[in-house]
Parts: sequence; C-alpha cells; structure tokens
Amino acid sequence: MTYSRNVSLIRYPNGTPRGEDFQLCETTVTDPAPGEILVRNLWMSVDPYMRGRMRPVKSYVPPFQLGESLDGRAIGQVAISRNPAYPEGALVRNNLGWREHFLSDGAGLQIIEPRAIPLQAYLGIMGAPGMTAWVGTTHIGKLKENENVFVSAAAGTVGSAVCQIAKIFGCHVVGSAGTRKKVAWLEEEAGVTALDYRACKDLTSDVAERFPNGIDLYFENVGGAHLQAAIESMNDFGRVVACGMISTYNDTVPAAGPSNLMHIVKKRIRMQGFIVRDHMDLRDAFEEQMGSWIADGKIKWRETVLESLERAPDAFIGLFKGENIGKMLVKLGDPE
Amino acid sequence: MTYSRNVSLIRYPNGTPRGEDFQLCETTVTDPAPGEILVRNLWMSVDPYMRGRMRPVKSYVPPFQLGESLDGRAIGQVAISRNPAYPEGALVRNNLGWREHFLSDGAGLQIIEPRAIPLQAYLGIMGAPGMTAWVGTTHIGKLKENENVFVSAAAGTVGSAVCQIAKIFGCHVVGSAGTRKKVAWLEEEAGVTALDYRACKDLTSDVAERFPNGIDLYFENVGGAHLQAAIESMNDFGRVVACGMISTYNDTVPAAGPSNLMHIVKKRIRMQGFIVRDHMDLRDAFEEQMGSWIADGKIKWRETVLESLERAPDAFIGLFKGENIGKMLVKLGDPE
Repeated sequence: MTYSRNVSLIRYPNGTPRGEDFQLCETTVTDPAPGEILVRNLWMSVDPYMRGRMRPVKSYVPPFQLGESLDGRAIGQVAISRNPAYPEGALVRNNLGWREHFLSDGAGLQIIEPRAIPLQAYLGIMGAPGMTAWVGTTHIGKLKENENVFVSAAAGTVGSAVCQIAKIFGCHVVGSAGTRKKVAWLEEEAGVTALDYRACKDLTSDVAERFPNGIDLYFENVGGAHLQAAIESMNDFGRVVACGMISTYNDTVPAAGPSNLMHIVKKRIRMQGFIVRDHMDLRDAFEEQMGSWIADGKIKWRETVLESLERAPDAFIGLFKGENIGKMLVKLGDPE
Repeated sequence: MTYSRNVSLIRYPNGTPRGEDFQLCETTVTDPAPGEILVRNLWMSVDPYMRGRMRPVKSYVPPFQLGESLDGRAIGQVAISRNPAYPEGALVRNNLGWREHFLSDGAGLQIIEPRAIPLQAYLGIMGAPGMTAWVGTTHIGKLKENENVFVSAAAGTVGSAVCQIAKIFGCHVVGSAGTRKKVAWLEEEAGVTALDYRACKDLTSDVAERFPNGIDLYFENVGGAHLQAAIESMNDFGRVVACGMISTYNDTVPAAGPSNLMHIVKKRIRMQGFIVRDHMDLRDAFEEQMGSWIADGKIKWRETVLESLERAPDAFIGLFKGENIGKMLVKLGDPE
C-alpha cells in the first residue's frame, strides 16, 4: 500500500480557472498484482488544451469528471514491478499526470532512455509540444525554405519550437509574445525576431510592418486579434496552421471572430486545424529529427518549473496569465 | 465605325450598390484593322465577385476604374472579321461584358460551338460558375461518396450545381436559400433538400437538425451566420470550401466573424479558399464531365434574364437582394 495524492476539480471553472476550482486529495494505491507495476511520477505537464476538458461538454477528448483525478502527460519511474517489460527504475512516459503514484499494467506507457537531454524535455521539446510544432510546421503547414512565417505565443514551448524550426528552414520569422522578458528570451537566446503584442497600438498594422513581403505561414496559437492581423497580411496561397486559440479558452461568452475572413477566398488561404495525437505514426521520425537538431545546438528551449503536486493548479492557471516562458512543468520528485 | 454603349461606375458604391452609382454611355468603335475583329455581345454575366472590384483597393483582380467600362464574362458574335482565326458569325466567349461592341485581336477569346446546350449556358453551368462548383467540390473539397454536404446560396448558379454534383456522388445534401420560390425550385426541380434560412429561428440549431450525422463538407458562398452554423455541425476532418461570402460584400463596417473558430482546431477542419481562374488547366476535363452529366439529365439549372444593356446595373444589384434563381444574365441581342 502506497500513500499518494492527486488533484481533481471540485467544480467546472467559470472563465479563468481559480485555485478554488481544484482540490488536492490523499489516496492510497494498492501493491501491484502480477503483471502490474507501481509508478512514481517525477514530472507532469500542464497544457492549455486541458482547459477544454474542464467543461461538461463533448470535445475531441472527454471532459474531466468532478472529484476524479485529472490526467495529462507525465514522466514517472517504476517503483515496484511485477511486469518484466517494465523493470524497477525504468523511466516511463505516461498519461496519468496530476497524481503522485499509480498502478499500471503497462498500457499506454512508453519507456524512455534519455540521452544527453534532461528527462523533463520528454514532456516539452522532445515530447508532444515539440512534436506539435514539427508536425504543424512541416506536415500541416508544408513549410518551404525562405518563406515568411508569423508565430503567436512564440515564447511558449510550441511557439518557440516553431520559430526555430522555421529559422532552420531559412525563413523570415517573427514571433509574438506578451512580456518584455519573453521578447528578450526570444531575441537574445533563441535568435528569433519578436513582437511584444501588449506594446502594440494596432496589432494588424504592426504585423504588416514586420512583413513587408507578406506572410506565407501563420502558426496560430492565440486566435482573436492575432488571427485577424495574420489574415490581413497573408500572401496568396498562404497557410494558417491552427494549433490552438488560447485567447478564447476562458471566454464565458464566445468572442466574435475576425471580420476579414473573406480574405480566405480572395487570397486562396488554407486554414487547417490539427491535433498531434492524430500523427503518432510520425513519432520516430520526429524524435530523430529533433534529437539531431538539439545535438547540433539548433534548437533552444526554456522551462518554467513549479515544485510539488500542490502547485499543479497554480502552474495550470499560470498558463493563461502568460506567466511561463517555455514549457510549464511541475516537478514531483527526483529519479532514484 | 459602329455605335455602341457601355456601363461604367460614376462613383464607388457605399454599401449595397444603387442605380445612381452606374452610368450608361454612348460610344463608337472604329472598324477593325488587319488582324482585328469587331464583336457584338449577345449575353453578359453579372457576378457577386464584381462587388469586390467596386472598391478602390487591391484585391485578386484590380479595381474597376471610374468612368471606364466595367468588364466581365460575356458571349459575343464576330460581326466584322479581318482575322481568319475568328470568321464572321463565330461565337466567342470573352471578358469584355458591360458593353455592346468591342474590337479585339483575339487575345483572351475562345470560340465556342454550342452543342445541345443554349448559348448562355456557357456563362453559367458550362462556364465559370459551373466550373467553380465542380472544382470546389471535387478538387478543393475532395468530396467522397455518401458524405454529408451543406451548401449556402444553394439556389444560385454555383450553389445549385454543387448540390447536384454532390447528389451524383450519392451524398446527403441540404442547400440553404432565402425565399420560398428558391426552396420550391430546389426541392421540386433540382431534387435537393432545401432550408429556407429566412424562416429559421436559429440557423445553427436548424442546420444541426438537418445533419444528425454532422457535416463533412460545407460549400461556403455566404459567410456570417451560415459559416458559424456549419462549423458548429462540422464533423472531425470536415472541409469548408470557401468560394465566397456574399453576406459581407456590401458591409461598410466589416461584420465580426464566427465565434466558434476554435472548432477548426478541435475538429481538425480544413477551410480553404479558391478562385476558379487558378484552375484553368482543368477546363477540358470540366467541360467533358459537365457536358455528359447534362446530356444524362443529371444536372438542372435556372436562369434569370434581364433584357438590354441598360438593365445590367439592375441585374447586378439584384444579386444582393436575392432576386435571382440560378444564373443572373443580361441579354444584349440574338445571334445572326
């Protein structure tokens, strides 16, 4: 029997989630039966998409249930094994975050063997967010060399990876971010030209100014005014890769969309949504490509880490306040 | 020297175009020089896209100039020929509508030899609108058999062709139109299930009701509430073929767009704009396919005809009042 804790929702948030919407519960986990393992989580991810599951409505993933542990991507270590495929000490990527321990028969787990890359990068640049950036840019956006690329939420994990992938393609890249600190990180460390959108008087004209030759690919993480500005500057046959629209996630009354969608016809724009989960057949190709870019020093990333499970709601809420640079993570423990 | 008349703009319309925005001018055309022909127009087309050219701003086609004849698709007959490639009496498709006569060296003209199809159909079902429907549905929308298809402005030339093409593909098709007369035509003659959107209390829920299995392909001619309704009912991996957004063309202040664009991400929707002009390499394939469908009685169409050049502004303005069923045409004369 192992003592554990998990985080669940007491109620569905109204607007921006608040601490009071969550609860930390103490639980126990029984010892593994034959074929099972006990996993101790070391790192967990909080991601904007989780907000969509905090509503009692159907989406592409089912909603979270009140009073039941939330879940999400995490990395754990096998603490007790009764399954030879997962020996004690093995590091396993799993989808059972927001809790300290869990039992598993191995379904949905992948053993990882970190190379020169920190363990938690498998939740960021080497994990779903990094792969989201890569799939979106290369497979959905069909990025070509020397194109003009605009990226919103550019200091986030996905956005900063998109910017740097586009730089590797020799593109003219501008990333939008919401604080001077983020802009500084993008410009000084990641080598990406950045636009502080909170300092813009008129985002549409500021974006137009940064793209005298128009935008060929817009990587959409934000929605609202960013989408309007991008569409306005888009070139003929431009692509809008729709990865997320974080500006809209906490709306209690849906905000109106861009008023310039007719440009989609006039400019023959392709706007396409995608979810990385649909592209898991590409994971090996992604890991090989990203691993080699990282080894060559071509991709940089940042993390914002909060320590211990009780901080998980703060980490999650922080995503919507723009508190993180790069991947927002919660550290639950060190490997043994 | 030949007496002729043309129609031009006196001023750029503000909002819905009015008769006072146009003028009818008397002109003369000189006799053809060697290599030239004199063409007498018999039919001309008015199309919603022309509204976009009645603004002094850059679009995918240059704006009309004040005081210069408007232009657009037309069919004429060679009246005097000094070019053996275009003998007298030949019927020529041209882009110099809105005028009675013009001189040409043949550039941009195509000789047509109507089969069992009325001449003016080459401006409609056998012309650019018919090809727009076919290219949009099959090449941009990649329509598959037995899908669920929603079409706005379904009683127009493009929309009614899309509906019938989708029926040929065995699809479940619902077309939206704005008058009882249009609905009756669609249902009774074209065999298409129709929705009278002006009689809907809530378009989004009415569309949802008509598509219990969701929408796989939405053919977008209207924008606004229609787009919102379609996106709301769209299936995963659905496609929005963006052909036009007539509800927005006369806006003096751009209207806000749909508030549910985040579904593009969640449902992995592809929304893609197109213009038939980019696909002219497919014209032979289109004419063969459409010709054979027409010969088999699988495609029906309607025309709304006004007579004489002075009615051309009324015909054009009528497009935005929903006055036409099927192709809106102006007849300028009979062939000799």
